[in-house]
Amino acid sequence: MRFITIGELLMRLSPPNYEKIRTTNSFIVNFGGAEANVAVSLANLGVDCSVFTVVPNNDIGKSAMRYLKANDVHTSPIIFAGERMGTYYLEEGISVRASQVIYDRKYSAFAEYDYTDLDLTGILKDYDWLHLSGITPALSNNCKILMEKALVVAKRLGMTVSFDCNFRSKLWGFEEARDILSRYMPYVDVLIGIEPLHLVDENGHDIKDGMSMQPSYEDQDRVFQELDKRYHFKAIARHVRYVHSSNSNSLKAYLFFGGKTYESQLMTFNILDRVGGGDAFSSGLIYALMEGMPPEETVNFAVASSVMKHAIRGDTNITDKESIMRLMNNNSFEIQR
Amino acid sequence: MRFITIGELLMRLSPPNYEKIRTTNSFIVNFGGAEANVAVSLANLGVDCSVFTVVPNNDIGKSAMRYLKANDVHTSPIIFAGERMGTYYLEEGISVRASQVIYDRKYSAFAEYDYTDLDLTGILKDYDWLHLSGITPALSNNCKILMEKALVVAKRLGMTVSFDCNFRSKLWGFEEARDILSRYMPYVDVLIGIEPLHLVDENGHDIKDGMSMQPSYEDQDRVFQELDKRYHFKAIARHVRYVHSSNSNSLKAYLFFGGKTYESQLMTFNILDRVGGGDAFSSGLIYALMEGMPPEETVNFAVASSVMKHAIRGDTNITDKESIMRLMNNNSFEIQR
Amino acid sequence: MRFITIGELLMRLSPPNYEKIRTTNSFIVNFGGAEANVAVSLANLGVDCSVFTVVPNNDIGKSAMRYLKANDVHTSPIIFAGERMGTYYLEEGISVRASQVIYDRKYSAFAEYDYTDLDLTGILKDYDWLHLSGITPALSNNCKILMEKALVVAKRLGMTVSFDCNFRSKLWGFEEARDILSRYMPYVDVLIGIEPLHLVDENGHDIKDGMSMQPSYEDQDRVFQELDKRYHFKAIARHVRYVHSSNSNSLKAYLFFGGKTYESQLMTFNILDRVGGGDAFSSGLIYALMEGMPPEETVNFAVASSVMKHAIRGDTNITDKESIMRLMNNNSFEIQR
Amino acid sequence: MRFITIGELLMRLSPPNYEKIRTTNSFIVNFGGAEANVAVSLANLGVDCSVFTVVPNNDIGKSAMRYLKANDVHTSPIIFAGERMGTYYLEEGISVRASQVIYDRKYSAFAEYDYTDLDLTGILKDYDWLHLSGITPALSNNCKILMEKALVVAKRLGMTVSFDCNFRSKLWGFEEARDILSRYMPYVDVLIGIEPLHLVDENGHDIKDGMSMQPSYEDQDRVFQELDKRYHFKAIARHVRYVHSSNSNSLKAYLFFGGKTYESQLMTFNILDRVGGGDAFSSGLIYALMEGMPPEETVNFAVASSVMKHAIRGDTNITDKESIMRLMNNNSFEIQR
Amino acid sequence: MRFITIGELLMRLSPPNYEKIRTTNSFIVNFGGAEANVAVSLANLGVDCSVFTVVPNNDIGKSAMRYLKANDVHTSPIIFAGERMGTYYLEEGISVRASQVIYDRKYSAFAEYDYTDLDLTGILKDYDWLHLSGITPALSNNCKILMEKALVVAKRLGMTVSFDCNFRSKLWGFEEARDILSRYMPYVDVLIGIEPLHLVDENGHDIKDGMSMQPSYEDQDRVFQELDKRYHFKAIARHVRYVHSSNSNSLKAYLFFGGKTYESQLMTFNILDRVGGGDAFSSGLIYALMEGMPPEETVNFAVASSVMKHAIRGDTNITDKESIMRLMNNNSFEIQR
Amino acid sequence: MRFITIGELLMRLSPPNYEKIRTTNSFIVNFGGAEANVAVSLANLGVDCSVFTVVPNNDIGKSAMRYLKANDVHTSPIIFAGERMGTYYLEEGISVRASQVIYDRKYSAFAEYDYTDLDLTGILKDYDWLHLSGITPALSNNCKILMEKALVVAKRLGMTVSFDCNFRSKLWGFEEARDILSRYMPYVDVLIGIEPLHLVDENGHDIKDGMSMQPSYEDQDRVFQELDKRYHFKAIARHVRYVHSSNSNSLKAYLFFGGKTYESQLMTFNILDRVGGGDAFSSGLIYALMEGMPPEETVNFAVASSVMKHAIRGDTNITDKESIMRLMNNNSFEIQR
Repeated sequence: MRFITIGELLMRLSPPNYEKIRTTNSFIVNFGGAEANVAVSLANLGVDCSVFTVVPNNDIGKSAMRYLKANDVHTSPIIFAGERMGTYYLEEGISVRASQVIYDRKYSAFAEYDYTDLDLTGILKDYDWLHLSGITPALSNNCKILMEKALVVAKRLGMTVSFDCNFRSKLWGFEEARDILSRYMPYVDVLIGIEPLHLVDENGHDIKDGMSMQPSYEDQDRVFQELDKRYHFKAIARHVRYVHSSNSNSLKAYLFFGGKTYESQLMTFNILDRVGGGDAFSSGLIYALMEGMPPEETVNFAVASSVMKHAIRGDTNITDKESIMRLMNNNSFEIQR
Repeated sequence: MRFITIGELLMRLSPPNYEKIRTTNSFIVNFGGAEANVAVSLANLGVDCSVFTVVPNNDIGKSAMRYLKANDVHTSPIIFAGERMGTYYLEEGISVRASQVIYDRKYSAFAEYDYTDLDLTGILKDYDWLHLSGITPALSNNCKILMEKALVVAKRLGMTVSFDCNFRSKLWGFEEARDILSRYMPYVDVLIGIEPLHLVDENGHDIKDGMSMQPSYEDQDRVFQELDKRYHFKAIARHVRYVHSSNSNSLKAYLFFGGKTYESQLMTFNILDRVGGGDAFSSGLIYALMEGMPPEETVNFAVASSVMKHAIRGDTNITDKESIMRLMNNNSFEIQR
Repeated sequence: MRFITIGELLMRLSPPNYEKIRTTNSFIVNFGGAEANVAVSLANLGVDCSVFTVVPNNDIGKSAMRYLKANDVHTSPIIFAGERMGTYYLEEGISVRASQVIYDRKYSAFAEYDYTDLDLTGILKDYDWLHLSGITPALSNNCKILMEKALVVAKRLGMTVSFDCNFRSKLWGFEEARDILSRYMPYVDVLIGIEPLHLVDENGHDIKDGMSMQPSYEDQDRVFQELDKRYHFKAIARHVRYVHSSNSNSLKAYLFFGGKTYESQLMTFNILDRVGGGDAFSSGLIYALMEGMPPEETVNFAVASSVMKHAIRGDTNITDKESIMRLMNNNSFEIQR
Repeated sequence: MRFITIGELLMRLSPPNYEKIRTTNSFIVNFGGAEANVAVSLANLGVDCSVFTVVPNNDIGKSAMRYLKANDVHTSPIIFAGERMGTYYLEEGISVRASQVIYDRKYSAFAEYDYTDLDLTGILKDYDWLHLSGITPALSNNCKILMEKALVVAKRLGMTVSFDCNFRSKLWGFEEARDILSRYMPYVDVLIGIEPLHLVDENGHDIKDGMSMQPSYEDQDRVFQELDKRYHFKAIARHVRYVHSSNSNSLKAYLFFGGKTYESQLMTFNILDRVGGGDAFSSGLIYALMEGMPPEETVNFAVASSVMKHAIRGDTNITDKESIMRLMNNNSFEIQR
Repeated sequence: MRFITIGELLMRLSPPNYEKIRTTNSFIVNFGGAEANVAVSLANLGVDCSVFTVVPNNDIGKSAMRYLKANDVHTSPIIFAGERMGTYYLEEGISVRASQVIYDRKYSAFAEYDYTDLDLTGILKDYDWLHLSGITPALSNNCKILMEKALVVAKRLGMTVSFDCNFRSKLWGFEEARDILSRYMPYVDVLIGIEPLHLVDENGHDIKDGMSMQPSYEDQDRVFQELDKRYHFKAIARHVRYVHSSNSNSLKAYLFFGGKTYESQLMTFNILDRVGGGDAFSSGLIYALMEGMPPEETVNFAVASSVMKHAIRGDTNITDKESIMRLMNNNSFEIQR
Repeated sequence: MRFITIGELLMRLSPPNYEKIRTTNSFIVNFGGAEANVAVSLANLGVDCSVFTVVPNNDIGKSAMRYLKANDVHTSPIIFAGERMGTYYLEEGISVRASQVIYDRKYSAFAEYDYTDLDLTGILKDYDWLHLSGITPALSNNCKILMEKALVVAKRLGMTVSFDCNFRSKLWGFEEARDILSRYMPYVDVLIGIEPLHLVDENGHDIKDGMSMQPSYEDQDRVFQELDKRYHFKAIARHVRYVHSSNSNSLKAYLFFGGKTYESQLMTFNILDRVGGGDAFSSGLIYALMEGMPPEETVNFAVASSVMKHAIRGDTNITDKESIMRLMNNNSFEIQR
């Protein structure tokens, strides 16, 4: 299985030691971006992974390349062009103080690139799995064009397409997002997250309306069934997060697979680094699906993958399958020596 | 509303990463002092704030000035004189290990300065609110003189006077503190904390005797009523702290206002930086009173202000009103992006 | 009481800020080793302590000497020889991620030294108490010889011998460990930990079989009684650990003393540094026994000593008796100023 | 004398310890920008200084405000608008490796702001001295409009206008720069740097052609005279830099004043921080002119100010007049205690 | 041109900020090893590079892999086996204090591996250039076997073989080194460094005897001619170092090529990081030879490559061809912006 | 030879990375004090050393004790009393910026202690050599009493007394210093530094008047002879410093011994840490005299000891005899591996 993803690479700058952005004297550098995070986490699990993106041909771009390569992610499809790398500032919250993100990603090399003449078939043809997210079309019109080309080409090539809705309210409006993302659904095999998507019944009511952010099994199953009725996904998955404080959360997940909804165990944990938790759910899910794990195991592996990520610095799950399996199956947490 | 406070500015030196003072190789620098903390926190909420103090005319003093100015606190009344800045070493505790303070504030510029000829009227005349604390008279006889002048002048100028009892057992004895602080009460409009004050009934028993550190509403109300009977405060407030461990506490508060005692919600939280928690209660209280919030909101805002401070490095509440309001009203703690 | 211990000194290299070994750019240096940890902790409690070990005569060895001396541990018996200091890499876990140890201690100066002609009587004769652990015989044949000499000499000199079983599965097999450690028991006065020891009944069944890692008082008492029947120890002690997560544990302990088993309170706490927790139990126990505390106090002091260690960076309990006593007797955890 | 400057504020991000951008894990934060640097340095010399700029209304903008305020620079004219702060990455060179700058300042709040309706007269009317630089018109058309308005308004208000040519080849072409900057000259009183300006003789040859970057007194005098003939400046100044290595330079300067050219001493020095060296020359020059120092002293003070800056971290000369005077007059460099 | 090298990878641990090993509290991690340094530097110049070595299959080994991959060095031939990574401690000297190395590389995975059944032909067959050094045979008998196999196989495959004598007195004796290295010469095409090699005349005198460490052109030419007479190298090169202090050196080089000796310019420079200077000479030389630069340029490029390395942290020349060319051709060292 | 010194121990707080005190966010901790520096440096050379001082009985005092013990200096004579440790802030200069010291040592435990009943004979009786400096009497009247007692007792016990004049203009006036220090001379055997001492000829002129800070051999010899005529010292020594910049100095020294003046070589060097350079001259001198080196070697060893210190972080010469000897005898400065 050869995996490729398309998306914007971001440089993350965060003050050390829970300092605030407005008073810090230094920033720690990490690289991320929802799609690249999935690739890096999968590569650490041993999957052959590539990223397609556009980065500026300067030392910031080179630094990002070093990060991908160090994690065994292939960078050969990447285009060096444009002027700036998308950047975001992360103020890591703790206790009653929530984490904050300041985006400085506008006008990025990836958003500004003109993809009209891009030979996407040439890029995608040797891969089996394409991962996309709802962030890309929110970036620019160029990126909307890229998304549509990618979906069409992937379909034509017979690739498995996973799609993480990943709504970002700072990037675009809910209505626009819903209209556009819903149009992508016919091309999607594995759907991750269910907002913002149209799901209206015959009366024009959105079936998801009024559903809690932490829905019951019954509610979730009903919505999954309706979604599946329309689009016939290979799988639908979403995680459910309970936020006790900035550094203590719980997670569980629902997976629709083979006509049935599965619910994972609920895990409660402390947080070292919140960012990339959702992407690690995606990478865990994709890995489990690639490996053909049974659905009960798949949904639990995906949650454990996400939970593990919260204990690792940076945006990605730099760990291995064995560690996630141990966590999933009653980890002892005791020092190993 | 123009706010001024009088008090000693302190340099705080604390080992990084929960190291111990006796083994550390470096100290992180912060500036504080109970009164300045209130000013800095208020200035971050948008109040026009000034500090009167005395600092040595050297680079340590200049560093303190930079800190105040960066936080929008006016430093024009400050006198540059004397030889040393009061200093304290803070060993931040964690888990079962309590935080420790080593004071090195004796002979400070502020404590040694001769205030007899100081034109306090000239300094205070353009301000509406004066904040003082029970630490200042504990520092030296010069400071006792300063306190008495300040109270008399403020009264004469019609300022609102807030006073935080702030008993520090390492600086003076309980008996002496009680005698002196009680003498200040007729000049005080807003009383914060109720120890150590005389409050004897007709039989010579202290009405506060036997009251728990975490009193019931009834006990607290009874004591507030008695205090108010004697001094007719505009408001009396105190917070109640439950210490589960060095890095986990709960806080609530009582406020006496308009003849009635109000009790806030109880908030439980992790601690990033314990110091200045009480001062952030004061700044939250003063801000709410300045803004004319209703008493229920005032007492909750003051507690939320204090709780937020525990999630911010340094002695002061470098945050804004919106963040405190969000915390007060059911904050989600989830990353904001 | 003059205390000496024999064992390998280790340099510990651990990434800062919960980084992973595979991605870190720096290591924090600490020194440890189960036996030296006990000496350093006891020295901080005021006991006259020495260490016998072998370290290379280079700057790494000198750095280790500086550490011991700074903690008031006498280094005069130490031999400078050989080529390398035993080293271990510690990846500190947090939340759902367990701490990991990579040993790089093979071929160390201590393991390789030829002890056949060592005048152990000359080294031990001025001491009252000898502490050993089950790690030493696991290191090399040379070290097995050293252990046997030490036990025989200590017995001859009438020293009190404490022994911490300290089974390390990465160093040797359970069977071999059990055979060898069991042979040491006749020389031991104070036994710490009960695995891996032979304890078979007349039917050849191991009496410890099936006993939980967190045994009931009854189970533990039964096993202690059987052990005591065979070896007539002055004391047997073990702590019981409940691992809630990498940074939250509970501890309690059992002590067999004067024919009876005592159980300590159970303490739950956050963890700043996990390593050396067991050694701080040993040092607390030995200190309490040296001081002649009653057994109820002894077992609680030993547990409190261990719990306190988890709140201190490094392998050792750099604290004092007063702090441990306060923790044992209802510590307030509130900042002390 | 009240000083104001108009220009873009930049956040500078530089790897610590001479690491390279492509391999670093963190960036040190400083704030700069040629014009603000002059204001900050002047404020540290005691001049009443303000900055007009546009910064985004987020925590990056607030951080910049804290920096200006800490240095006693008034921020009241500053507009909070737009999306991003201009940023640059500085790789500090050493030895044979030159320092490198990667600009990420495009689309900044300052460059994008629409200045057409800005009431510049209202902003400038209370100031005596306006400082501008050739960087601003290179940023955007909006900024070109701002520049022209500023020059016209300042002239009308009778302000002294200093102008630092500050050609940046990464921002615009030499030809365009020369055409535009030359048009500003009639409004300029104090010219700093002489490139890129038109200075053609009657034959259409540029009089500066062929002049060395390190011209002789005679060459420099001739060019200054020609410039003065055309524009009748109050003063013209430029510094001359000799680059021995990335961390060792020499500086001297020429000043044209009252019809005559003055040459400073040549100072050779090690470099701690190269950036802002030219701006500290400007601030030293402006300060000396404000103070009415004689021209020989003015040119030497300006050079000493620049040299001192190279020994101070960050973009600005956080020092005082006394220190610069001591350096100018035969500093001893020996520790002062 | 595909390049491969065989050699031991080392983890380098060095105290920050010129601290001493015996007093430091942390070590900075770098990876190196003479042969891998050449590969990493060449890969940064754009050459397709691989390393063959043996590293332990643990997180230290993985960290080393991340370093190689980040630098675009292929790791596919690498074997994961054995117990420990060779390590060295570097105390960086400054001024009058020389840098010190403590080796802890004995018993490393690379030295202990049994190479008798290794299919070196399979490993080397797709490469054009093999680089070896005199460090490998000094490590163990296993490594001597590996070296001989490698030379024989490379010859058979028609590869170009470069060999850096790299005598390390802490690893083996001069006599043994000379005997063994001399035996390798018939297999070597590009010889780097000329000690310790046999070069006796007909009278049994070593022709190199009495030659200065900084020989004249004539002396060097004579020795090169004699070496070439015996072995018919494609090229012989050596650099000459003048050590003014720990942080100031000069370098030049001699190259014998096409029957003639060429001498480079002499460059004097400050030092940021001394280690790997010789390896960067090798990588510069190999690159220039691969590119077919004329010999005058080759020798100057090799020296400039080495000089540049001294201005870059870590063991390797993380730079590009353009930067080295600029340094070679009269670099300005002025900040580039 | 058993060595003891009496003097104030100081905590030194210095910003990292050449930051300024007024802008730093942290301080590096070192311990020093002219006399303790001599003890620590001598202990590192292998001399049995003790310090007598007074430190507060808190964690700052304990930290100082850990420092002394780690360096093998005996602390048994030290008294724990008083309130504060003398402190100083060091801003490390570089290039044209001189290092600055801010003293905060007033009211220190050492200065405030009442020495009238101190049993100095009991403290000094087991030592052979007493080292004192001119800083102690400048601290307080208590310290003046201590000095006089120490000199008298040492004389009575037949100890060798070395005395470093060490004039500090921030602590007392030149006149007072000269009067008091001159009174000590009859008790001194080894005089280090010759200012401020009375040395008037029969006409009342000070023979030292007009002597350069960098005197010729003839001038120095003349003054030494005159001094010796009056006091019959065992040895007189002084070093001469040439300050090229904050980070580049030269040193040489003069030694009067056996009636003759010896002049050392002149050494030029870069500076890593300037503080303690003079004390390392003293420790080198004392060591050489203890070892009975010939005077030519003594004066060169003392200078080399001082020069080496400038390349070592902290106030003391943490090095060994071999390193100083190598530096003295034509050190190569090349990396040792």
